[in-house]
Amino acid sequence: MNIRSNPEKTVPAVTTGPLPSSRKIFASPDAAPDLRVPLREIILSEGAGEPNLPVYDTSGPYTDPSVTIDVNAGLPRNRKQWVLERGGVEEYEGRQIKPEDNGSVSTDKAARAFSAYHKPLRGLDGHKITQLEFARAGIITKEMIYVAARENLGRKQQLERAEAALADGESFGAAVPAFITPEFVRSEIARGRAIIPSNINHSELEPMIIGRNFLTKINANIGNSAVTSSVEEEVEKMVWAIRWGADTVMDLSTGRNIHTTREWILRNAPVPIGTVPIYQALEKCNGDPVKLTWELYKDTLIEQCEQGVDYFTIHAGVRLQYIHLTANRVTGIVSRGGSIMAKWCLAHHKESFLYTHFDEICDLMRKYDVSFSLGDGLRPGSIADANDRAQFAELETLGELTKIAWDKGCQVMIEGPGHVPMHKIKINMDKQLKECGEAPFYTLGPLTTDIAPGYDHITSGIGAAMIGWFGCAMLCYVTPKEHLGLPDRNDVKTGVITYKIAAHAADLAKGHPAAQLRDDALSRARFEFRWTDQFNLGLDPDTAKSFHDETLPKEAHKVAHFCSMCGPKFCSMKITQDVRDYAATLNDPNRVGMSMAGTAEDGMARMSAKFKEMGESLYLDAEKVKESNRVL
Amino acid sequence: MNIRSNPEKTVPAVTTGPLPSSRKIFASPDAAPDLRVPLREIILSEGAGEPNLPVYDTSGPYTDPSVTIDVNAGLPRNRKQWVLERGGVEEYEGRQIKPEDNGSVSTDKAARAFSAYHKPLRGLDGHKITQLEFARAGIITKEMIYVAARENLGRKQQLERAEAALADGESFGAAVPAFITPEFVRSEIARGRAIIPSNINHSELEPMIIGRNFLTKINANIGNSAVTSSVEEEVEKMVWAIRWGADTVMDLSTGRNIHTTREWILRNAPVPIGTVPIYQALEKCNGDPVKLTWELYKDTLIEQCEQGVDYFTIHAGVRLQYIHLTANRVTGIVSRGGSIMAKWCLAHHKESFLYTHFDEICDLMRKYDVSFSLGDGLRPGSIADANDRAQFAELETLGELTKIAWDKGCQVMIEGPGHVPMHKIKINMDKQLKECGEAPFYTLGPLTTDIAPGYDHITSGIGAAMIGWFGCAMLCYVTPKEHLGLPDRNDVKTGVITYKIAAHAADLAKGHPAAQLRDDALSRARFEFRWTDQFNLGLDPDTAKSFHDETLPKEAHKVAHFCSMCGPKFCSMKITQDVRDYAATLNDPNRVGMSMAGTAEDGMARMSAKFKEMGESLYLDAEKVKESNRVL
Repeated sequence: MNIRSNPEKTVPAVTTGPLPSSRKIFASPDAAPDLRVPLREIILSEGAGEPNLPVYDTSGPYTDPSVTIDVNAGLPRNRKQWVLERGGVEEYEGRQIKPEDNGSVSTDKAARAFSAYHKPLRGLDGHKITQLEFARAGIITKEMIYVAARENLGRKQQLERAEAALADGESFGAAVPAFITPEFVRSEIARGRAIIPSNINHSELEPMIIGRNFLTKINANIGNSAVTSSVEEEVEKMVWAIRWGADTVMDLSTGRNIHTTREWILRNAPVPIGTVPIYQALEKCNGDPVKLTWELYKDTLIEQCEQGVDYFTIHAGVRLQYIHLTANRVTGIVSRGGSIMAKWCLAHHKESFLYTHFDEICDLMRKYDVSFSLGDGLRPGSIADANDRAQFAELETLGELTKIAWDKGCQVMIEGPGHVPMHKIKINMDKQLKECGEAPFYTLGPLTTDIAPGYDHITSGIGAAMIGWFGCAMLCYVTPKEHLGLPDRNDVKTGVITYKIAAHAADLAKGHPAAQLRDDALSRARFEFRWTDQFNLGLDPDTAKSFHDETLPKEAHKVAHFCSMCGPKFCSMKITQDVRDYAATLNDPNRVGMSMAGTAEDGMARMSAKFKEMGESLYLDAEKVKESNRVL
Repeated sequence: MNIRSNPEKTVPAVTTGPLPSSRKIFASPDAAPDLRVPLREIILSEGAGEPNLPVYDTSGPYTDPSVTIDVNAGLPRNRKQWVLERGGVEEYEGRQIKPEDNGSVSTDKAARAFSAYHKPLRGLDGHKITQLEFARAGIITKEMIYVAARENLGRKQQLERAEAALADGESFGAAVPAFITPEFVRSEIARGRAIIPSNINHSELEPMIIGRNFLTKINANIGNSAVTSSVEEEVEKMVWAIRWGADTVMDLSTGRNIHTTREWILRNAPVPIGTVPIYQALEKCNGDPVKLTWELYKDTLIEQCEQGVDYFTIHAGVRLQYIHLTANRVTGIVSRGGSIMAKWCLAHHKESFLYTHFDEICDLMRKYDVSFSLGDGLRPGSIADANDRAQFAELETLGELTKIAWDKGCQVMIEGPGHVPMHKIKINMDKQLKECGEAPFYTLGPLTTDIAPGYDHITSGIGAAMIGWFGCAMLCYVTPKEHLGLPDRNDVKTGVITYKIAAHAADLAKGHPAAQLRDDALSRARFEFRWTDQFNLGLDPDTAKSFHDETLPKEAHKVAHFCSMCGPKFCSMKITQDVRDYAATLNDPNRVGMSMAGTAEDGMARMSAKFKEMGESLYLDAEKVKESNRVL
């Protein structure tokens, strides 16, 4: 090891503990009962009259009070055994860490090195290594069994018909089955329609799947900057992002300590970690794109493959012949990777080395099962440039590269924009599906207007929900600081929650068979004035509770069910009951829209009497409470 | 006057002054040069190389430094002259104000009365009064001329072809013309496809138009609550909401001082004010819906017609025969007006008096040109209940009532939900257009999922953008406090900005011929590192600037164009110039996607040399700045 380290630097402190009224539970899939697939169970209040709700849980052991978190040691490396037991890999002495891997940082500015060095694994020639290769061979891996259980959200079987009938979405050709089996996972991966980003060296991973026939996923970007953040902050940002629901995290660090930062993140990350290797390669040649070489880039890929990065953004579609297509754009080239490669191509007047060496890149990534995230270096940076020839020319090349990577046995997803007005989103999605053979699409937003700096989580959340509905498999978040500065911890949370909303809205609209269960549970809690259940079933119980407490009189908000303001807590239910009783008096309760004159006079008279008995104050008080808690 | 007043209470203080780098300008339409139609001109920095940008301005005189604001006196009543000069109205002694109009408030709890009493106008029989009646008669009113100029956003003529070509949206049958003429406004109103809510007694009004062939509008709800706010706060909330872009404001006050609050708001409101008269009627019978009578309700309508309310939400579609349709809903009836009427119908086992007296309501509202906003009392309160039979049965009745109101000469818009998953939004919109003869639709959100209390401005902003695109004419905002408590001033701003985003995204997607001008101006500013222009062109310059300042080193953010961080400010433009020069060297600059091998070798070689001369550091520094200002 030749890594500069400063042992006096602190070990990162991270946020731990369960979310409000939640506990970690584990599913044990029939196909592999030794697996412990985590879910979060939201515990409802006593008397809720319905079961607790299990929800998808990205947060890892950090929310499990029975686990002692030691960031210095990293998470347990359980998955290494899965990889070893299926064979075809070797442990070897990894690449030597070099000073330039950390931007040649001086010892006083060096971060503390991670406590341990794990020898890397790599695939042996002639053996299956990637999830794609196993899937094609008809082999169901533990990763596949794990994600199948995860996707079912605690269901052990298909929903009853009445519940499944909720799933009346428009899927635009996606085909989310009523229940996810390991075999379905395998078939989707074999088809290239889904990926499990899972470097064989990321032993801390809790596997997850990205594909349009599964739950829509979200990514959170983090990463240090020379000026404003540290290793400590970045590890906490990762833990914080997954606490609120980030399915994967990209480490976009630049500058010094880049290798060490990534090591800390990976060893503590239960979610897939993605990177853009060209960023680190650029640091290794002092930030001069012209000096980039294939050898330098390849060396960086090996470094990151050995660390356990699960997917690489590679801008191999920025071809020399496309660069002039950006000439008349309003915002030119806005992708950092894209402009680095454009500069290299122009300066050398050569085709991109990422394109010319694509076969070698595939061979290398296959050995570690690092997934491709084919980058959109020519993505539009403004509404004006959306869906233009430059963007689509690159997308066509990404389709060509997808097929090459598949032939090599690599898993692939495709990155997308960016800035796209609503009416061009579906066109973009459909073209991606067509050009890239249904490989998963992974988009940044898109932002549906350029006019709201400071609110781009919202401009892009609109586009993200729509493209998720149309078939996008993973949505890369945008925070309120987009275009303005570096996101802090609060911005990360706002970005993640906004994108959880977008992803869930997409799942509902696609007709995911279990998505609406949470909406319904929350709506019932809302209608029955079970305030704490309403908070806890939401994406951000803390904020919901604090907003509620902010407005209500102090005496009142200490009473769990608002009895002090609304009288009997069940009064709103009484209104419904009243309507239900009334409906039952009709001759034919199923008929609709018909005049009732002369058909149910007796029933109405009875109801009128009953209503008067019931006491009208119940009604009124319920109304007052509702009103006081509704936007005026 | 028999109105309790407390003269010791303060006069409301409101926010005044222009937005950053903005000035009020006025268009003078050719058809009526005496009209002064306000616009806000965003002043760009020196050297921007492009003209200042005029934008739609809802903020009234409050942002005009040349006007002295006196809330106690109210805004100038210019529009009274327009109404008088076209005749057909009489001034008369209005209805006597009664103690119950203010909830029988005691003198010590009474708000200060507004300073002046203006005798109301009403229409005379046999004369045209409403904008609809004038439009049908082929008469173009000043209001129509005014809104035509307003909708053109400062354009005096159709855009040049190159700019108009930007408008490549999908309009779903809407037909926004390239340029809005007064005659077009008249024809749309005559057709019932647009309304100008403009009570003849709201003389302070700056008229605006609501219809799907015009800019998408937004509404902000305000209103006092007995516990948490005052007249002062509500007047400021109105001024604050229009400062950020609310096109209309609904006063949903309940409890005491309801008449006085409304008077203060109206006399200071340059935007249309809407109300839900049943709320005040309910206060007049001590909150007991069963005691409501047609006479009491009618008296309340007269009271508010005389004050100058521009549109009334009337839940006349909640018919007795539909109530049982809500029996099996997850969230029953969630509209306050809807549940009041449902209760009344069940208690009396009678058809709703709003339905049985609808003709009389029309006759009354016509006399003052109060527009209908036909309320959706059976709107869904959860994803589970969206687009159900109860909702659609009511919508069909609203269609029937629309035709009655039109026959009576009244302007009409239709309220819509609520909670609707994405895949059901267009179905809802299309049904509204069909059932209601294209009368403008006015929806609350819709919220696209129920699972994010605390973030319902976002869950609903997604739905609002989509339904705006599909044809909804006005979007009623939802604030972060929805379902949890009363919105404060910050919540009002967040709600308004979120909905301005939704409305603008809708305009872009529909292909509004001028909408993209602002996106493009902002994108150019962004790409050229004109930071202050970027902030000022945005919807919320203050927040954009503060986010920017938060992250950047203090020395740097005092330099206007970031020169201290990025070297020459034009360096990012240099990248684009480089690409442009390169493109110019190609034999055929228009060809796309072809290999360039052997076709432009000389050009490439020249460019390579030129690039080396240019100095690579320019490039790099620009990249660093971009990176430092991008989400990591």
